[in-house]
Amino acid sequence: MSKIRVVIWNEFRHEKTHAAVKAIYPAGMHQAIKDGIAAEDLDIRLASLDEPEHGLTQEVVDSTDVLIWWGHCAHHEVDDKIVDRVQKRVLEGMGLIVLHSGHFSKIFRRMLGTNCSLLWREVGEKERLWNIEPSHPITQGIGEYFVLPHEEMYGERFDVPQDGKTIFISWFEGGEVFRSGLAYERGHGKIFYFRPGHETYPTYYDKNVLKVIGNAVRWAKPVILAKHICPKSEPLETIYTINPATGSAGIKQEV
Amino acid sequence: MSKIRVVIWNEFRHEKTHAAVKAIYPAGMHQAIKDGIAAEDLDIRLASLDEPEHGLTQEVVDSTDVLIWWGHCAHHEVDDKIVDRVQKRVLEGMGLIVLHSGHFSKIFRRMLGTNCSLLWREVGEKERLWNIEPSHPITQGIGEYFVLPHEEMYGERFDVPQDGKTIFISWFEGGEVFRSGLAYERGHGKIFYFRPGHETYPTYYDKNVLKVIGNAVRWAKPVILAKHICPKSEPLETIYTINPATGSAGIKQEV
Amino acid sequence: MSKIRVVIWNEFRHEKTHAAVKAIYPAGMHQAIKDGIAAEDLDIRLASLDEPEHGLTQEVVDSTDVLIWWGHCAHHEVDDKIVDRVQKRVLEGMGLIVLHSGHFSKIFRRMLGTNCSLLWREVGEKERLWNIEPSHPITQGIGEYFVLPHEEMYGERFDVPQDGKTIFISWFEGGEVFRSGLAYERGHGKIFYFRPGHETYPTYYDKNVLKVIGNAVRWAKPVILAKHICPKSEPLETIYTINPATGSAGIKQEV
Amino acid sequence: MSKIRVVIWNEFRHEKTHAAVKAIYPAGMHQAIKDGIAAEDLDIRLASLDEPEHGLTQEVVDSTDVLIWWGHCAHHEVDDKIVDRVQKRVLEGMGLIVLHSGHFSKIFRRMLGTNCSLLWREVGEKERLWNIEPSHPITQGIGEYFVLPHEEMYGERFDVPQDGKTIFISWFEGGEVFRSGLAYERGHGKIFYFRPGHETYPTYYDKNVLKVIGNAVRWAKPVILAKHICPKSEPLETIYTINPATGSAGIKQEV
Repeated sequence: MSKIRVVIWNEFRHEKTHAAVKAIYPAGMHQAIKDGIAAEDLDIRLASLDEPEHGLTQEVVDSTDVLIWWGHCAHHEVDDKIVDRVQKRVLEGMGLIVLHSGHFSKIFRRMLGTNCSLLWREVGEKERLWNIEPSHPITQGIGEYFVLPHEEMYGERFDVPQDGKTIFISWFEGGEVFRSGLAYERGHGKIFYFRPGHETYPTYYDKNVLKVIGNAVRWAKPVILAKHICPKSEPLETIYTINPATGSAGIKQEV
Repeated sequence: MSKIRVVIWNEFRHEKTHAAVKAIYPAGMHQAIKDGIAAEDLDIRLASLDEPEHGLTQEVVDSTDVLIWWGHCAHHEVDDKIVDRVQKRVLEGMGLIVLHSGHFSKIFRRMLGTNCSLLWREVGEKERLWNIEPSHPITQGIGEYFVLPHEEMYGERFDVPQDGKTIFISWFEGGEVFRSGLAYERGHGKIFYFRPGHETYPTYYDKNVLKVIGNAVRWAKPVILAKHICPKSEPLETIYTINPATGSAGIKQEV
Repeated sequence: MSKIRVVIWNEFRHEKTHAAVKAIYPAGMHQAIKDGIAAEDLDIRLASLDEPEHGLTQEVVDSTDVLIWWGHCAHHEVDDKIVDRVQKRVLEGMGLIVLHSGHFSKIFRRMLGTNCSLLWREVGEKERLWNIEPSHPITQGIGEYFVLPHEEMYGERFDVPQDGKTIFISWFEGGEVFRSGLAYERGHGKIFYFRPGHETYPTYYDKNVLKVIGNAVRWAKPVILAKHICPKSEPLETIYTINPATGSAGIKQEV
Repeated sequence: MSKIRVVIWNEFRHEKTHAAVKAIYPAGMHQAIKDGIAAEDLDIRLASLDEPEHGLTQEVVDSTDVLIWWGHCAHHEVDDKIVDRVQKRVLEGMGLIVLHSGHFSKIFRRMLGTNCSLLWREVGEKERLWNIEPSHPITQGIGEYFVLPHEEMYGERFDVPQDGKTIFISWFEGGEVFRSGLAYERGHGKIFYFRPGHETYPTYYDKNVLKVIGNAVRWAKPVILAKHICPKSEPLETIYTINPATGSAGIKQEV
């Protein structure tokens, strides 16, 4: 069986400009995630904002099965042409996993059509993620819940379409709740939003978080990869109605 | 009770350039729809592509409860800024009713995030629309099905998110089927896609079609109209976890 | 406009046998809810388990638009024939509002098909219900969240179908979360599950809880009331295929 | 990898009493399906109504991963205790594939909670099934559509919950449409309804029909098999609220 071709995309700015972040993720969050989910069946590459075409050239996108996305302070710097390219590929079947502050990324808002707004607070409080779908592929190996000792808080109302299958709901120490794992399908592609991962905490070293991301990659890999077309189609049955525009009828496709 | 403020937006090009279309809709399809759904509880205005800002100035959009959209050959001429404006208003609560070839409009694809592609054929064949949800507000007054003697064919697969509630499914004489009425919610707004309405047939004089559009206007009117914000939020409970970044804890909102 | 005919059904056992419950609800929880939601547009009757046919005779059910259900310790005493009768009426269009421990009632499990199991604990802890759908009719007049100072805890995983629209998510002081307001449609009827209401707390005097129940009654009232049939149907189009069983074809319904 | 343990359950009455049916399916429809989907990864057994406990003893059900169900004239003869047993197993994770007239079986109605009524007609007309979800596991190997030359007609409105993912929509020669492939999840189990298969036509020899059933078996196999419980749960966080019933607080689970 061929390997799943994964690209982990990271904005990769905080790690360069914030000493506290650099201390936790010296090679970037994308590298930490790569190391954490590395496995025989995955072929993982990295890409980031400041590379040419953000590291997402047509060649790279065309050879990607699942794209993981982390962005925060520079969403607006992502070129709309690259967003178009990624959206097209997702609709053709590529999986997309959006992490944490990626909720406000151009690509996530483009795919869902909503604001993706929420409440937030950063005081390093405790988060407990409840596993709402124990029979979903994404939660295999995860218990009834798991705890992150320090995280940024994201609270409801999360402005997203309600057809997201709710995989996790978070409890926050400060009194809020959040739909922290949401699974969508758009076109032929699967999309998973996963809440945790603020840059100032070592969340991407947590074994449960890595387990979820790894599971999500397998879940989101393409079943098919197909171009979308909008074809004119010949009739499959004899049409007896007279077309008022032409005065003729009886058209039928030769098979 | 105040009236529902409706704007019917029409590309309004075919009616000027095609004699056959002009013969059917001398004042435009938007005018025919306005005449057909006119009622005491509705305050209806018209807008079209070639007006300044396509007739959808900030003032117009801000005073609209439900926007009806018909476009076909000039989707690409619609200014992205106007699409942004309309999308923002829908997410705030405005209803949006997209008709027929509007499936490929910028605003519909923006709201749903998918290609919205389909099969099509124009030979004036018979269409029968089956009422799948007889207890939905949009189908009140509509029987088990209704027939349009001549229509353009749209066939599956229709590339849209599956959370659309299927209100109608069409049978076409040439052998295809189509989800012809789909009801979505995005942000605080409701969206209804309604398939019929090719410009070369008198579809917008059909009493069932007009009944559905009129019902959809009442269904789609805003429950609330609210700006989307993404606020920083103070804790509602005492937080005992020590923030590793600051060394402090115990923050609680004063109520 | 005619009034909405509401029946509030209560098991009505705890109030007779537990002094602490009787002290809070001397005339029963159903009476407290009736008093709390009383309004011009509602015609409210009461019914309870120990009445003949549990107070739900064919005549009562046939004249009910919305049925509210509270049960706990005696679910098994509810006669299956009455459950059949109520289910049939819901599928015909009657609204059903299931409260708190009614999650394990025969009628709720019958309507949803699942176990409806959950975690639970009764230590009188604080519950905060987050309003996830501020534009839904059920949440009108409710703020971003509301707090109940003492409640029984219900925690996820709640074993229910995922097509329930999530209206509220609860945060519990002890660390759990719960989808506390869920809106379903089955047949022509609407169903709303609302979590709060343990018998040892004065929850049904809380103004937010009463507001939600009152809103739910208006939301759940029938759009139509229709018998379900499964009719043999004559063809609507000429059938040219030869029926191998009869050797004939060309059947068409006379209209 | 262990094999998927499949049981094909057939009412198996028509094949004994109707010569025309016996001529098509001399060993029963279940045997034809077994022969048609036989593969290395499947361990297939047969069961039928007139066996003790309908062939679905506790031992058989407990060792089944996916149950396929065909019934028609004798739904009412299926023992409610066996229906309870199957429902419990589906909620624990077993897959359930319901064929054709099984729409009115006790088990399907039990799982969905609705009437599952529809229109019907038996004149051997042509059916075309459109593939609505080309990227779903159930449609792999199926083209844009496939045709059955003779089938019983089932028409909308099909009274089922709307959370069924629509995999196929049928076009019938006589003018009707039908959601012919519907995928549900209930508890930990997956359910697929597949419309074709009237006993008087050789539908279960059709290669597309068999391909769909075989795909559905792989899709519906359990991800987990877990008993449902409804446990009392100790607090995970310190509770500071004083329980009015006991006057105490501060309970916390020892981990």
